[in-house]
Amino acid sequence: MTFDIPAPDERARGEARERLDGLVKPLGALGRLEELAAWLCAAHGTVPPRPLDDVRVVVFAGDHGVSAASPVSAVSPVSAYPREVTAAMVRVFLSGASGVNVLARQVGARVRVLDVAVDGDLTDVPPEVTAHKVRRGSGAIDVADALEPGEAERGFAAGRAVADEEIDGGADLLIPGDMGIGNTTVASALVAACLGLPAEDVVGAGTGVDERGRARKVAVVEAALARAGSRAREPFALLTALGSACAAATAGFLVQAAVRGVPVLLDGVFSGAAALVAREIAPEAARWWLAGHRSTEPSQAFALKALGLEPILDLGLRLGEGSGAVQAVPVLRAARATLAEMGRLADLA
Amino acid sequence: MTFDIPAPDERARGEARERLDGLVKPLGALGRLEELAAWLCAAHGTVPPRPLDDVRVVVFAGDHGVSAASPVSAVSPVSAYPREVTAAMVRVFLSGASGVNVLARQVGARVRVLDVAVDGDLTDVPPEVTAHKVRRGSGAIDVADALEPGEAERGFAAGRAVADEEIDGGADLLIPGDMGIGNTTVASALVAACLGLPAEDVVGAGTGVDERGRARKVAVVEAALARAGSRAREPFALLTALGSACAAATAGFLVQAAVRGVPVLLDGVFSGAAALVAREIAPEAARWWLAGHRSTEPSQAFALKALGLEPILDLGLRLGEGSGAVQAVPVLRAARATLAEMGRLADLA
Repeated sequence: MTFDIPAPDERARGEARERLDGLVKPLGALGRLEELAAWLCAAHGTVPPRPLDDVRVVVFAGDHGVSAASPVSAVSPVSAYPREVTAAMVRVFLSGASGVNVLARQVGARVRVLDVAVDGDLTDVPPEVTAHKVRRGSGAIDVADALEPGEAERGFAAGRAVADEEIDGGADLLIPGDMGIGNTTVASALVAACLGLPAEDVVGAGTGVDERGRARKVAVVEAALARAGSRAREPFALLTALGSACAAATAGFLVQAAVRGVPVLLDGVFSGAAALVAREIAPEAARWWLAGHRSTEPSQAFALKALGLEPILDLGLRLGEGSGAVQAVPVLRAARATLAEMGRLADLA
Repeated sequence: MTFDIPAPDERARGEARERLDGLVKPLGALGRLEELAAWLCAAHGTVPPRPLDDVRVVVFAGDHGVSAASPVSAVSPVSAYPREVTAAMVRVFLSGASGVNVLARQVGARVRVLDVAVDGDLTDVPPEVTAHKVRRGSGAIDVADALEPGEAERGFAAGRAVADEEIDGGADLLIPGDMGIGNTTVASALVAACLGLPAEDVVGAGTGVDERGRARKVAVVEAALARAGSRAREPFALLTALGSACAAATAGFLVQAAVRGVPVLLDGVFSGAAALVAREIAPEAARWWLAGHRSTEPSQAFALKALGLEPILDLGLRLGEGSGAVQAVPVLRAARATLAEMGRLADLA
């Protein structure tokens, strides 16, 4: 698979930096805002960059085999919540009462939820929610492959199609969200596999498991890494072995945003893990991504470091859903506004 | 001087925490937002807290003797910019083109600039800008007292009056801003004096001086601390010896906001230093303050630590003006919105 990914406009970035140096402020005094303003100029190829009026969050919802307390998985559960919560939360997203719904309204962003792999009965929800569904749940990665052959590719294609739909609809900025009981375990496994890290280093408390719960997650990730073996070197094989349909879809979403030249704000550990895999598939895509916030999950920190991304916010969040990234939108808009609206030193009386 | 400062409502804080635990999210998953939501509930005495619709920044502008390349100050200059910039910037604030003007518009906040001690001709600006003027400039603190007897008290009273004006006008949240060439030197001296720290530890690059410039600032602060001696133990004597009219006014503003029970978002090093002095004057006032952002100035970090405050944002800013704090407003609004709008776990299908 090859992708034609546009390069950010370095001439615009340079022009932005020059313009920033001439604004009514000490050189560099706006810190991170200046870097973000220049980044947006490079992305848009204009100084100042265009407004970020149309921001869209897409929540990829799905279940993970590791969350089932079933005979196939030796060491579950890995979450503080039962898997039935995933389907229930899809209805919460549709009602507008989830965390990311509320936080997105604060910045005027839209939220779309997609059932990619929910293991529950969602026949009553609007058909567009399940239009991109790949399967129900996934294999428990400690004992079985997550996906059947071809499903990783189907998930990836679904994510690309969704990015196209949102961009064709006018999106200026995309945020990948996630919902799925068990998904921090899968994300940790992907990060460990991509970066060659031991399970012990990458596994966190997720929704809030105790030390015994975390030990179970470590055991699942260790078993999954051992089972995947050398398949970890090829991204679609990796997604099949220990990923999920949501991880594949998120990776496709991230790559397609880059193909279309639309900036992305990564959220927490799940989109960080998907971004690592997406970079294996399309290395140039990473130039179109920013990190919205630092989550409390250790594997997110490893993923962002490997991607060379410094998160904009650090509010101790661990909710997922896109809830952290959406809060970084005002910072990007502020960065743009300084370049668009501040006076020039040369005009000082 | 004694002040009747209301206590935040601990019953409302407890009720907020209980309500937060019942929202559709894992326990504690909203991290800092949960703490801020509960803090606002305690401040407002209601769950959820009231909207923060009317946010007001007051920029206290003034010059500082240490910035003058004059015979009285042995070691100036301490800034990368000449003092004439202070008066010029007052006009920029009035034109709406300063950094904080732009950033405040992004969150719908108002900006008011006050000439408290500008050493320049501002006879052409609207009279309300100079209505609270205390003096022109200040003494160079390495060789002379900053203020004449009584001026610290006058500045403090002016700041209190301004807080009353803004609160009577409907302010829900106040942000102290600052503008004044030389003011990071004065702020560093105040922090060093309040906390018993050596000049070398507290002095930073301010507007962007080089190592030689920083060494001159350290020498100024050392000389000022030696000159102030035991007067550092009494806050008004301290403001007189090595503060400024702006520092006194900002301290008064912070104390009066607390008297009125209106939350404050501290900005950078100047409001951090003023907050330390204000706490000496009215210890209970600090319960009404939050820290908007972490500046790059080392003395701000010392001040916030001593005040027990963790900044909401860390964007590497060093502009002053209230520019960092104003960007934390969306985080406070987001915190409130989660409590006001998110669904409850108990209602999950």
